[in-house]
Parts: sequence; C-alpha cells; structure tokens
Amino acid sequence: MTTQPAPARQPAAGLPLRPELAHEEPYGAPQLDVPVLLNVNENPYAPSEDVVATIAAEVAAAARGLNRYPDRDFLALRADLAGYLGRESGVALEAEQLWAANGSNEVMLHLLQAFGGPGRTAVSFAPTYSMYPEYARDTHTRWVTGRRAADFTVDVDAAVAVIEAEQPAVILLASPNNPTGTALPLDTVRAVLDAAARVQVPQAPAGQRGAVVVVDEAYAEFRREGTPSALELLADHPHLAVTRTMSKAFSAAGLRLGYLAASRELVDALRVVRLPYHLSAVTQAAARGALQHTGSLLAQVDALRAERDELVTWLRAQTGPSGARLVVADTDANFALFGTFADRHAVWQGLLDRGVLVREVGPDGWLRVSVGTPAETARFKEALLEVMGDLA
Amino acid sequence: MTTQPAPARQPAAGLPLRPELAHEEPYGAPQLDVPVLLNVNENPYAPSEDVVATIAAEVAAAARGLNRYPDRDFLALRADLAGYLGRESGVALEAEQLWAANGSNEVMLHLLQAFGGPGRTAVSFAPTYSMYPEYARDTHTRWVTGRRAADFTVDVDAAVAVIEAEQPAVILLASPNNPTGTALPLDTVRAVLDAAARVQVPQAPAGQRGAVVVVDEAYAEFRREGTPSALELLADHPHLAVTRTMSKAFSAAGLRLGYLAASRELVDALRVVRLPYHLSAVTQAAARGALQHTGSLLAQVDALRAERDELVTWLRAQTGPSGARLVVADTDANFALFGTFADRHAVWQGLLDRGVLVREVGPDGWLRVSVGTPAETARFKEALLEVMGDLA
Repeated sequence: MTTQPAPARQPAAGLPLRPELAHEEPYGAPQLDVPVLLNVNENPYAPSEDVVATIAAEVAAAARGLNRYPDRDFLALRADLAGYLGRESGVALEAEQLWAANGSNEVMLHLLQAFGGPGRTAVSFAPTYSMYPEYARDTHTRWVTGRRAADFTVDVDAAVAVIEAEQPAVILLASPNNPTGTALPLDTVRAVLDAAARVQVPQAPAGQRGAVVVVDEAYAEFRREGTPSALELLADHPHLAVTRTMSKAFSAAGLRLGYLAASRELVDALRVVRLPYHLSAVTQAAARGALQHTGSLLAQVDALRAERDELVTWLRAQTGPSGARLVVADTDANFALFGTFADRHAVWQGLLDRGVLVREVGPDGWLRVSVGTPAETARFKEALLEVMGDLA
Repeated sequence: MTTQPAPARQPAAGLPLRPELAHEEPYGAPQLDVPVLLNVNENPYAPSEDVVATIAAEVAAAARGLNRYPDRDFLALRADLAGYLGRESGVALEAEQLWAANGSNEVMLHLLQAFGGPGRTAVSFAPTYSMYPEYARDTHTRWVTGRRAADFTVDVDAAVAVIEAEQPAVILLASPNNPTGTALPLDTVRAVLDAAARVQVPQAPAGQRGAVVVVDEAYAEFRREGTPSALELLADHPHLAVTRTMSKAFSAAGLRLGYLAASRELVDALRVVRLPYHLSAVTQAAARGALQHTGSLLAQVDALRAERDELVTWLRAQTGPSGARLVVADTDANFALFGTFADRHAVWQGLLDRGVLVREVGPDGWLRVSVGTPAETARFKEALLEVMGDLA
C-alpha cells in the first residue's frame, strides 16, 4: 500500500467518455500516511513468516509453469475453498459450487453481468456497502435502495414491499452489513428468498419466476457465537449466492481473492460472463498457500472478535461531546459503527490529527472504526477521549 | 494449466440469466492433454530459475504486508512498464500514461466500459481476435466487423468507409493481428486515427468529435526488424491506446498482466471504471519481478523470432494434400497461419492424433500454429508431413 494521495483526475477533454461517468471520481477511501490505519477494515495482523513462506513456495512452483495460461476453471482452488467453508460453517459443498475472482468486487460484477444489466434492477437496503451502486453502474443495471430500520436490521415487511414493487433481478443483502456490522437472522434471509422466488424478472422466459439473492458475507468469520451463515440455506435455494473474501479473515486484502458459494447452475452462469483466465496462476497459488494456514489465521480472528467486543463495551461506556453516552451498532464484523456526533467530521479530523484514521461513512453522525491490534485500539481510545474532550 | 476437458455447463433452469447469454458457452480453447501444445500462442520457454527466484522473493516481500489493500494506482509497476516500453520502442512514456489489469482482457473491458456501452458501437476488421466480440457483449456495446483484405492487411479506404458509416466509439486494430500475424503499417493506423477523429460518438457532448482507437500489440515484441510500433504515434494522438501483455514476450501467460499506454487523460478515464484494487499486491510484485529480467526474456524472444521465420520458410516449401504449395500469412507474431486445406479439421485432427495440438481458427481452410521449442517444431513438422501424406 502506498500512502501518497491519489493523483487528481485529468479532465477527459475530447475523449468520448460515457456521459454517466463524466463527473465520476475513481472509487476509494483516501490513502493517507497515518500511523494507525483503522479506516478500511483490514486485518491488522500481517501474515506470519510461516504463511509468507508457504505463499512464496506455492508461487515459485506456479512460476515454473508461468509461460502457460492458468487453469481457467481453477478447480483445485475451488475444492480448497469448499473444504474451508465446510469446516467453517458445517455446510458440505462441492468444488463446482464455488466461484472466485479478483476480489469480491469482481465476483459481484460477474453476478450483475449474468443476472442484471440493461432493463433490469438490483436492490439493496441502505445504509449498506457503498460499492454496490458502482457494480450496478458498471453493468448498466438500475439501482434501487430500500431502507434498513433505525437499528440497521432489515424489516421483512418493508423489504418484501420493495421487492414486490421493483421486481429486481438481483437482491443484495450484506450480512454482517458494512458499515453497520449488522448480521441478518436467517428468517429474514428466508423471507427475502421467498419474495425473490415470486419476482417476474424482466426479459426472463415467460412464466419463469425468481430473482437471485446475494448474501454478502465478507465479514462472516467475525460473527458472534450463535450467529448463523446463509450458507446453511444453500441446499434449498438454487437462486442464492453467498459471497465471501480472503481479505479480512485470511489477512489477505492484498491478495484480492473474493469467492462465493451457490448452486452449480448459478456458478455455471458466471462461467459464461467471466473473462477467460481471469484468475492468474499466481493468485491461485497464493490463495491455496494461505488456505493451508486456516487454523492459525482463524485463531487471530478469534482474538480480533474478543478485541472487538471489548471495544464496543468500552465505547458504550463513554460520554460523547453532547453529554450523552456513545451508541454503537451491534456488530458481527471486524469494525464498529459508533456515534452519534453533531459534527462527525470534526471528530474524524481530530482523530486524524492525532494519527488515527477512521472512516467517515454511514448515516449522518456516525463513524466507523476497524478493530486493530491492542496497541492500535489503545491509541484510538486515547485519541477519541481527547477529541471528545475538546469538542465538549 | 490443467488438461481435463472443461465440465459441461449446467442448464440455468429457473435462473434469470440474461437472454443474450442463454445459449452461450464459456469462452476458451479446448484444454486437452497433449504432448505438444502449439494452440494458444504461449511462449514455450518456462521462466528460468533466476526469474522464478526473483518472482518468489518479490511476492514474499509483498506477502509480508498482505493484510493491507494493494496500491490502488500501482504507480511503481506503471513506472516499470513505462521504462520497459521506452527501452523496447524508443518512445519515452510517463508512469501516468500506463495502465494495467488482469490480462489484456480486463484492459479491453475497461476501455469498452469507459468509451463503449449501450447505444455505442465498436468496430474491428476480421479475421481478427475472437475475444473482441465478447468484450462488446459483456459491455452491451454494439459490435460491427469490417473485413480485412485477402492478404489480411487493412485496406484504408474500406476501413474509413466502415468508420464513417458506423460512427463507432471504439475502433480495435490488432497489430500484429491474431490469428493472421499481420502487422499494420503506421500509415494505416494514422489513416484510421484521422477517420476516428471525425466520428461523432453517440452521447458525446454536442460538437465534440473523436473515437478511441485501440491498437492491440499483444505480440509486438515478436515483430520483424523494421516493423514499427503504434507507440510512436501516442504523442500526437490523445485518443490512441496501445495495448500490450506480459503473457507472450515475458513468458508469463499465467500471470495475467495486460497493460496499455495512452495519454494521461485516457488512462484517467479508465481509473473511473476499474474496480478499486483490481490489481493485487501479489500480481504487482510478480510482474515487477519478471520485469527485472527483461534482458534475458527478450533474448528468448529473439530466438523465437528466428524459429518463427525458419518455420514459415519451411512451411512455404511444402506441398499440401491438394498438390499446391502451402501458403503462410506474413507474420510478425509468435505464430503462423498456414493453409489452405480443403478439410482443415482433418489436418487438425491428424496432428492431434500425433500428439500435436494446433488451433482451428481463422478463415476456412487455415490453421494456426504457435512457435514452440525446436523440438516441438520438429514434432509438428514431422506430424504435418505424415498427415498431409495421408490426405493426399
């Protein structure tokens, strides 16, 4: 990661840029040079030397055949991912039920290329992940957001009403949700799946019904004890896709390995829209290397979950500048949305002035902080107390 | 690379797959288990142990920070690529004029996402690379092909007529062309650029003119002495993009590193449509590692160019089953299109039966063979003579 600010975009004078892109800026959080980076939900623990050595060895082995195109269907990696999810969730999956791409971003792009597109609609429930509208824009899919409830859960009746009104081809549910941390009960997912099954998707064969439901579980490994995964619903729902990533739990945001589990039929539809050889031999090798260390990497996840719960408890015990106790959204992720602040930007800036970068995202008045190392969390707490003192 | 046949696609029963995809199969050449693979224009030389060691070391260094997201703008890699192109072509380029993605496939996708799309047209001249219509389909860009001349060059008058008639947003010129090997004279590219400058692209601001011209130079390093690169035209043409790849000359098809050089303004437009962090830290590191070995890798390219020229000379001296001499299209690439055969499939099958896989592609009657090692070329020649003898 570099920390220089992104260069300003040049005006595309005279170039036939699509009109809907003319005033768009490249997506991404500011990349600033700050000692404590708690802004993009990275895992604060770098891979151990054991993990590094395995990745290097696997990549070296792959590099010896680098003159050849990679395995287009990457079935070995898909088998490893299926095995991992089986151990993590208790849900047995076949390799052919897995799909992967360069980050969950590209997995989502494949989903919307296959099932969205011109004349079709995708729906989600805000506040939610800010990349979703970009996926829709990039695939010319109409984008509609319903609202989450005040506690950031999805109200089933409201969601079903939006689905019935909009007849979307794709419904995106983040669980745990970003930026709120909210995990959805399986009953909510089931209710959305039932409503999705009744949708008449535009351009689908006459008489055919059924939208695709995507549950984005990027942060699933951080969920609290007893919180279920939507993977449990796969066997009964061929229209369901559950996306995951190695960015967070596997401490591998730099690897860009997003994946999903679904029915074989759904995965096969993605094979039509993927660009051939989209996943390099190097990426396949590095991912398989990291997956060999699942045990130690998930032990770190457990430590982060404990750190997260302590941070939430601490935040809820603090008094904000307004004199009221801070509130924190219930979180099953490796971050916490906290507030509320009359001037959240002042709090964000005050933290940044003290070397702590958090994210100014979500509904007005809230800020999001990633769970860091104990030392980083201590710096954050100290800085927050100072900032709130100054603003009080 | 695996060699098992791709699994058959499952019918997407009940899934709302887009109608234009309903009968599509995943793109890709058959992956067969054959001793001599001369079908997908791979470099036959695996990276040396020196190259492997550098890649492994660079990836290990990157893996130590793998918990962080990669440099979204990958300026270090872009600087390395600019430096390489400067040495290869003599054209000085800034890092900000370079762009890269997971294979030229994704580079082309970015180009069509930014400049093509619904209501717009992309044009190329056939026979040419069979992936181009897939990029158009994936971005909902209308796809039109003009024809190349009988000798596979682009006739300027015919090309200009197509451009004037179709008013495309994007014009794709492969040079050296795949599957024919034909390089375009710069005068042809200049004439296309002039015609492109007069195009009124749909949805562009009123009064603005100018289509984007993409010269696909995937095989440029294999061009014969004296054949120019369109990189020389970049300084005067902000609407021009010249694409390259590390798959062929750098013996790194498994790395999936495609790139382009263009004006800063054009590159900045691509930054809007790229998914953030599309290029992993591992890919950036491995590519930079391979680029440290430019000298030795390009020495192999020289050997392959000599091997290619000898192969072309040999083929032209052979008599085909019809009793006529074989013909070979002039080639500046690492492959040769040869023929013509009354039944090319029989020749292809005969070669395959003898353990040599070539590609059944291009106009009727032609076959494409990649330049392999001397031993592979010898096997190919021997098999071809046998097959032609059987068919005579």
